[in-house]
Amino acid sequence: MATPWSSRYAHRTKSITSSAIRELLKITQRPEVISFAGGLPAPEVFPYERFKEASQRVLAEKGPIALQYGTTEGYDPLRELIVQQMSRYGIKAGIGNVLMTSGSQQALDLIGKLLINRGDHVLTEAPTYLGALQAFNVYGAQYVTVPIDDDGIITSRLEEACRVGPKFMYILPNFQNPGGTTLSLERREELVALADKYGIPIIEDDPYGQLRFEGEHLPPLVLLDREHNKRDTGYEYGNIIYLSTFSKTLAPGLRLGWIVAPTDVIAKLVQLKQSADLNSSTFVQIVAYEVAKDGFIEQHVKKIRDVYRERRDSMLEALEEFFPAEVQWTHPAGGLFLWATLPEGMDCQSLFKKAIEQNVAFVPGESFYPGGEVGCHHMRLNFSYCKPETIREGIYRLSIAIKKQMKELRGEPVVTP
Amino acid sequence: MATPWSSRYAHRTKSITSSAIRELLKITQRPEVISFAGGLPAPEVFPYERFKEASQRVLAEKGPIALQYGTTEGYDPLRELIVQQMSRYGIKAGIGNVLMTSGSQQALDLIGKLLINRGDHVLTEAPTYLGALQAFNVYGAQYVTVPIDDDGIITSRLEEACRVGPKFMYILPNFQNPGGTTLSLERREELVALADKYGIPIIEDDPYGQLRFEGEHLPPLVLLDREHNKRDTGYEYGNIIYLSTFSKTLAPGLRLGWIVAPTDVIAKLVQLKQSADLNSSTFVQIVAYEVAKDGFIEQHVKKIRDVYRERRDSMLEALEEFFPAEVQWTHPAGGLFLWATLPEGMDCQSLFKKAIEQNVAFVPGESFYPGGEVGCHHMRLNFSYCKPETIREGIYRLSIAIKKQMKELRGEPVVTP
Repeated sequence: MATPWSSRYAHRTKSITSSAIRELLKITQRPEVISFAGGLPAPEVFPYERFKEASQRVLAEKGPIALQYGTTEGYDPLRELIVQQMSRYGIKAGIGNVLMTSGSQQALDLIGKLLINRGDHVLTEAPTYLGALQAFNVYGAQYVTVPIDDDGIITSRLEEACRVGPKFMYILPNFQNPGGTTLSLERREELVALADKYGIPIIEDDPYGQLRFEGEHLPPLVLLDREHNKRDTGYEYGNIIYLSTFSKTLAPGLRLGWIVAPTDVIAKLVQLKQSADLNSSTFVQIVAYEVAKDGFIEQHVKKIRDVYRERRDSMLEALEEFFPAEVQWTHPAGGLFLWATLPEGMDCQSLFKKAIEQNVAFVPGESFYPGGEVGCHHMRLNFSYCKPETIREGIYRLSIAIKKQMKELRGEPVVTP
Repeated sequence: MATPWSSRYAHRTKSITSSAIRELLKITQRPEVISFAGGLPAPEVFPYERFKEASQRVLAEKGPIALQYGTTEGYDPLRELIVQQMSRYGIKAGIGNVLMTSGSQQALDLIGKLLINRGDHVLTEAPTYLGALQAFNVYGAQYVTVPIDDDGIITSRLEEACRVGPKFMYILPNFQNPGGTTLSLERREELVALADKYGIPIIEDDPYGQLRFEGEHLPPLVLLDREHNKRDTGYEYGNIIYLSTFSKTLAPGLRLGWIVAPTDVIAKLVQLKQSADLNSSTFVQIVAYEVAKDGFIEQHVKKIRDVYRERRDSMLEALEEFFPAEVQWTHPAGGLFLWATLPEGMDCQSLFKKAIEQNVAFVPGESFYPGGEVGCHHMRLNFSYCKPETIREGIYRLSIAIKKQMKELRGEPVVTP
């Protein structure tokens, strides 16, 4: 009388669905499709030779540690390197403030586990990172959202959302995924002040911060929070948990990210990580350290910036050349994505089907809104993965799909070639 | 007015505590301490040269895949290799039944997430694997336990526990952690029949199954379940989820385990893993495949068995020679652990302090009971990590601590050297 497994699933499984993006990626992996859908780094920039040298050295010199269980907190020299890196951005943390995670995605999962009771509200930008919504949904999060414009989250609309009493805010200040927008300095200060006024902690997710192509680096929220509160106590009494990752600066195949938080929060997160996967791969952590150390990662990030800047430029030029005048898009100063807005009434789900017919793919915008957005007329375009000439061809193909859909909307006849 | 973080923690954080073992490990890492506390494989058996060759080849030939994001399900050739390995034990699964996880610990976390609502009962052996309790506690599990003896879980006491209506049973049939005991064939059949009668699914955790030093391999529960139900449908309608890992056969520093389950269960677990860490390190998965393939892992496991058999024998001999007659212990036919039982009234927590004074460590038994066991008089001893001569010295030191504690219990004067 074995019972079907599905009758035994926990309640929380009802609030989870497969990532639209990852399902789309399966469709779009046919070689003839030019895909702007994923969030993949360019494989041309992975430092293969450095990885080869590092893994040989690690296995020869540190094999017994690298292949063994490690501490949950992570490999100490790597945590120290992260502390050094962050200090250049003014973040005063000690090694005890850093927890290594299995990618930034695990950081989001652990934070959901730590903070969210079923029905708690989380304040997010709209749109926001899909992977965060997936992680928080498992724990029964509800959402209160604030729209973004070219300067990031619209802080004049933030106070109203704070009054709902969210458990925390989840913010991507730099080259936001999916918007490609960056939170201005003025708004950063307003955000930090409002979070402090209402006692709402902030999760600052910064996977792309180092990938700035132009303009001045803006101070992270965690630094502004300290200044706002005139604290000189390092990280200990902060209102902000800061997240970042090696996925965009070294390689996502490592699955290595980190959390920076006050030590009492780290202690709790360590317990949660123990029960989740004991520790992130010791081998991978030591290899990542050997690759990144001695200033290599700083030099390497410059190369990535150059490659991605060129690709962003190619995409912006192609959009200008091929897209109808009615379409608008953001002009990201860094990162991997831009966000295009079609005329009202254009539904990106049906556009997606037309695009696939043209062998080009993107992610329809509704995935990035906590409630979904019916008839959403936005799309996320990734510019890091394809080479410039492919980007140009892909945007051309996409423009054909858009023009067809616009004709249909106007009731004009569409001639299929 | 920043609020302390602790006031924002979710309810579930109250049911979690740090792993006693991992905290103990910190104390016991002083070089002068002989530790039987961890569950560490012997670093002498890690195949360093094979790992070196494999990582070079992977980076040279598959770098762009190895350093990139991968599918959540895992690297297909590795899943196929696991299917082949398992088929030798009679487990008929397809690649679609296999999900790669970040160590077996992540498998336990995902299963807790999938199945446990707060207050649900989980049926476990008593004692049982601490890491499973930690994973299930996060989701608010309650427990109903059935004691073990030398033949594993005492099935004559199982039916009563089934009537409590547990959501699932969690069973370690081979060289159980911490007991070192193996479930007999007769009891395996009884267990499967009772699980079927009461419609209670089984999580079969088998990290050590391949590390059998002597005697005949016993069929896994998943195979007996199929025979019991006269099913010839492969894995699809089974009552059992099977877990295993490369931690004990290749290296725990990889953090690679796997779940075998019906495809509809795998689909749900894939969604949960997406939100937990997207995928396990692609680099590590491909390296593990290159190390394991072409029959290497089968040959390598034989070497591990020889090394661990010798160490188990050293421990059994030393126990026989040094331990007082009042102490009993299990005689594991494989795995990494044995379980010693001291006379009633001997408390292993206070014995632990005495042992540390003698520079030797073990894990006090109460950690392995869901409710804790006050005044618990058991201890888990690991024999895989230390070399034979160190094992002998460590057991001698431990015998001194035990004899002191026994004298104290009898009220005799203890002379401290």
